[in-house]
Amino acid sequence: LADGRQSEAAIRVWRGAARLLRQHGFACVGELTLASGRRADLAALGPKGDVWIVEVKSSLADFRADSKWPDYRLHCDRLYFATHAEVPLDVFPQEAGLILSDGFSAEILRAAPEHRMAAATRKAVTLRFAQAAANRLHDALDPQARGEV
Amino acid sequence: LADGRQSEAAIRVWRGAARLLRQHGFACVGELTLASGRRADLAALGPKGDVWIVEVKSSLADFRADSKWPDYRLHCDRLYFATHAEVPLDVFPQEAGLILSDGFSAEILRAAPEHRMAAATRKAVTLRFAQAAANRLHDALDPQARGEV
Repeated sequence: LADGRQSEAAIRVWRGAARLLRQHGFACVGELTLASGRRADLAALGPKGDVWIVEVKSSLADFRADSKWPDYRLHCDRLYFATHAEVPLDVFPQEAGLILSDGFSAEILRAAPEHRMAAATRKAVTLRFAQAAANRLHDALDPQARGEV
Repeated sequence: LADGRQSEAAIRVWRGAARLLRQHGFACVGELTLASGRRADLAALGPKGDVWIVEVKSSLADFRADSKWPDYRLHCDRLYFATHAEVPLDVFPQEAGLILSDGFSAEILRAAPEHRMAAATRKAVTLRFAQAAANRLHDALDPQARGEV
């Protein structure tokens, strides 16, 4: 979100999906780099430490270009796609959940199956999430925090 | 930081201390509410998941008003005080570490002893840290994320 590379449509899908997750007690971070080097569009950390990853697909082409989505399952407990009403919903795989966002709010159309991470993986993903969120917030509050002082 | 309640001196101590911790690979969050209900001035999460708490003392009176500091040790692996050069350094207890901040950078004058948290406590503190950081960042990006959508 807000790093200048996403389309307006993707930003809107993200916003609605993140508001929905937040209402369910999940804290959300965009563009989280995973241990594999791949970046999750939206990572969400639940009240009990559950990790959900949401991949934002703003067009059919956007979905079709992504052959790597099963890999995301290794880094979360549930995997969702999020899209908007102009994308045909039947292309999205049953093996993942599906969130429909209108840019302001969103709804879960299909719950994602759960595939619990091992404790060590969970710890690593949670640490990654925490550090990314805190460092971005810190950079916003103190732009000189990142570099050499 | 930046919630309007801290003095300018406290903000400067915080800023220098957080820059120092960041240089050591720690992600920093201000005003983290702990399980006890008490708030840590600065919580820092290290590259391996170590949690440090830094209590900012901007004056002698500020330090003397705080009789509860040993409680913070229950929620971290190391506890530091951070202050600036106009506060007499010999008032700070040997049982905690000491950071001297000039507002731009800082140095560790005394390393804090380590008192490792139990795994369950560490998990809870890390989750708290992650959610606080992500939610604040999310609120900054989308002011409507917090409330009812």
